[in-house]
Amino acid sequence: MTGRQMAQEMAEQPARLQALLRRSDEIGERVRELGPQPLQGITIVARGSSDHAATYGRYLLEPATGRPVSLAAPSLHTLYRIRVDYRGQLVVGVSQSGRTPEIVTTLGLLREAGGCALAITNDPTSELAKAAGAVIELGAGDEQAVPATKTVTAQLAAFAILAQSLGRVPFSRDQLASLPEWVDEVIEDPGPAAVAAETLVGAPNLIVVARGFLYGAALEAALKIKETCSLLADGYSSADLLHGPIAAVTRGFPVVALSAPGPAHEDVVELVSELRSRGASVLTISPDRDADMPFPEGIPEALTPIVAVVRAQQLAHALALRLGYDPDSPQGLSKVTAT
Amino acid sequence: MTGRQMAQEMAEQPARLQALLRRSDEIGERVRELGPQPLQGITIVARGSSDHAATYGRYLLEPATGRPVSLAAPSLHTLYRIRVDYRGQLVVGVSQSGRTPEIVTTLGLLREAGGCALAITNDPTSELAKAAGAVIELGAGDEQAVPATKTVTAQLAAFAILAQSLGRVPFSRDQLASLPEWVDEVIEDPGPAAVAAETLVGAPNLIVVARGFLYGAALEAALKIKETCSLLADGYSSADLLHGPIAAVTRGFPVVALSAPGPAHEDVVELVSELRSRGASVLTISPDRDADMPFPEGIPEALTPIVAVVRAQQLAHALALRLGYDPDSPQGLSKVTAT
Repeated sequence: MTGRQMAQEMAEQPARLQALLRRSDEIGERVRELGPQPLQGITIVARGSSDHAATYGRYLLEPATGRPVSLAAPSLHTLYRIRVDYRGQLVVGVSQSGRTPEIVTTLGLLREAGGCALAITNDPTSELAKAAGAVIELGAGDEQAVPATKTVTAQLAAFAILAQSLGRVPFSRDQLASLPEWVDEVIEDPGPAAVAAETLVGAPNLIVVARGFLYGAALEAALKIKETCSLLADGYSSADLLHGPIAAVTRGFPVVALSAPGPAHEDVVELVSELRSRGASVLTISPDRDADMPFPEGIPEALTPIVAVVRAQQLAHALALRLGYDPDSPQGLSKVTAT
Repeated sequence: MTGRQMAQEMAEQPARLQALLRRSDEIGERVRELGPQPLQGITIVARGSSDHAATYGRYLLEPATGRPVSLAAPSLHTLYRIRVDYRGQLVVGVSQSGRTPEIVTTLGLLREAGGCALAITNDPTSELAKAAGAVIELGAGDEQAVPATKTVTAQLAAFAILAQSLGRVPFSRDQLASLPEWVDEVIEDPGPAAVAAETLVGAPNLIVVARGFLYGAALEAALKIKETCSLLADGYSSADLLHGPIAAVTRGFPVVALSAPGPAHEDVVELVSELRSRGASVLTISPDRDADMPFPEGIPEALTPIVAVVRAQQLAHALALRLGYDPDSPQGLSKVTAT
């Protein structure tokens, strides 16, 4: 049976998250020791799924520290070799394997330029870990399936821990500790994703929309579907979609919308209604009871991305199998990318 | 005849760029007076086409200043109202109309938080201009067609002028002054884009790839096609494409690749060869003589995006007409977006 590895790694998520969250205090101490003092800003270096975790991290780290958070453009450093002064910057390199050469090189160069380098990786002996002054080890265990699942939710949780250790976050310690249970509730309820997948059979493409905290989860949902289903899927902020791309949404166009109660909720609800009036076929992931793929109620908005991503994993897995693909090893992808 | 406004506005670009570039010294003075001193970093606030100009600007501003450059996440400020300290930051708000409420609000809030606010806009009396401490007026004249063309190349040129006034740039003043001529050469040669458009008729979707300086131009090319042709088109960095999305590229899949000699060239050439080996149908925009849509040779890489974007405008315009759409007013889009 295909897709077994991905399914097994998805199922491990509650336990892996719990183990990571138990190390929150120790991680927090290491991060605070690393500096810099004072902190001028944060730069995150990542690609692919890790970049989506970084997008989520940005929404937590900017309010936590009150300082600008930037996602690095690695080519400026690896290809153009520009001279920069990164003193006062916390530079966070994110890579599941810790072996993506461009991320390793960029983190190293920004550290040489004065930045305090932190690695978030599943392999504490990796090149990325060696290039950093401190490491957050994900402890997600070996990931065999090509589409990253348990390492992505671990990266998302690592950013929640990092933000908590640097300042104020919009969730309590108890709420963060409840995350594994919420993820477990979703894992134990694969039915809605299977039903939703059925409606996507035959779709040539798909968009995923969200806003605010859930935006990174929308990007990750789109990538997971794209990787496993050979389907062109892209993630959009609901605000960006209105700036032009909505013109491409025609009758029957499939859309997945992620939302949760909070300041961004109304924007997404309005967009969904606009999309439906244009004839789009919208699947919803939200804590609403009548959502197509509901998740538990009462999760603080800032933690919902970690749960919503699991719904998206289920959707990608179910759709890939339904289309006859092996989600464990999508055509022409390898686990570690050379750039 | 439809598409007349867009065509006329495209044709104005050489003259509009020339007028803007003539004001370089005066703009430079205003920017240097604005501060901050010392500069800790730069944050750019933009959406849609302006965000693509911002992506290009980032590639110029980070080497020019040696400090981290970030693209703001407006919702953090407008929806979540987070408390931040932006002292030491140059905050650049970019909006053609100067009336996109979210951009105006974000620029205002970041100025209140200590940032030095600069507006890049076509309307010096706009709300965005009023919210800023200094303004770069694009002087592109009224833009009537919904797809932004002359205001986008003006924004790109404004970032080149801004970078030049803040530090070292990888082009000379003479080369920058030659830009209008290079754009004119492309405008006077619409044939290749019309031929390329013909090959895209019937395509349900499309991706545009580039790397480094041309990445912002790839995003803008995709948006222009998406807006005018109701076709799902997305822009990717060649490095990001290899991190998963390439799995969605199947036989006959249409790709537009932008490249120019420079450090990023080899990566894009390799990607194009990989895409062709997967059966993708690749159209090229580059200074190579045998490119599908060539542009003049000898343009410094850092200025090629401004010329490549004009090729993409021609492609979007020609394809929209061929598909029976009116590129001047795409279905369901308005000129000023409310978010």
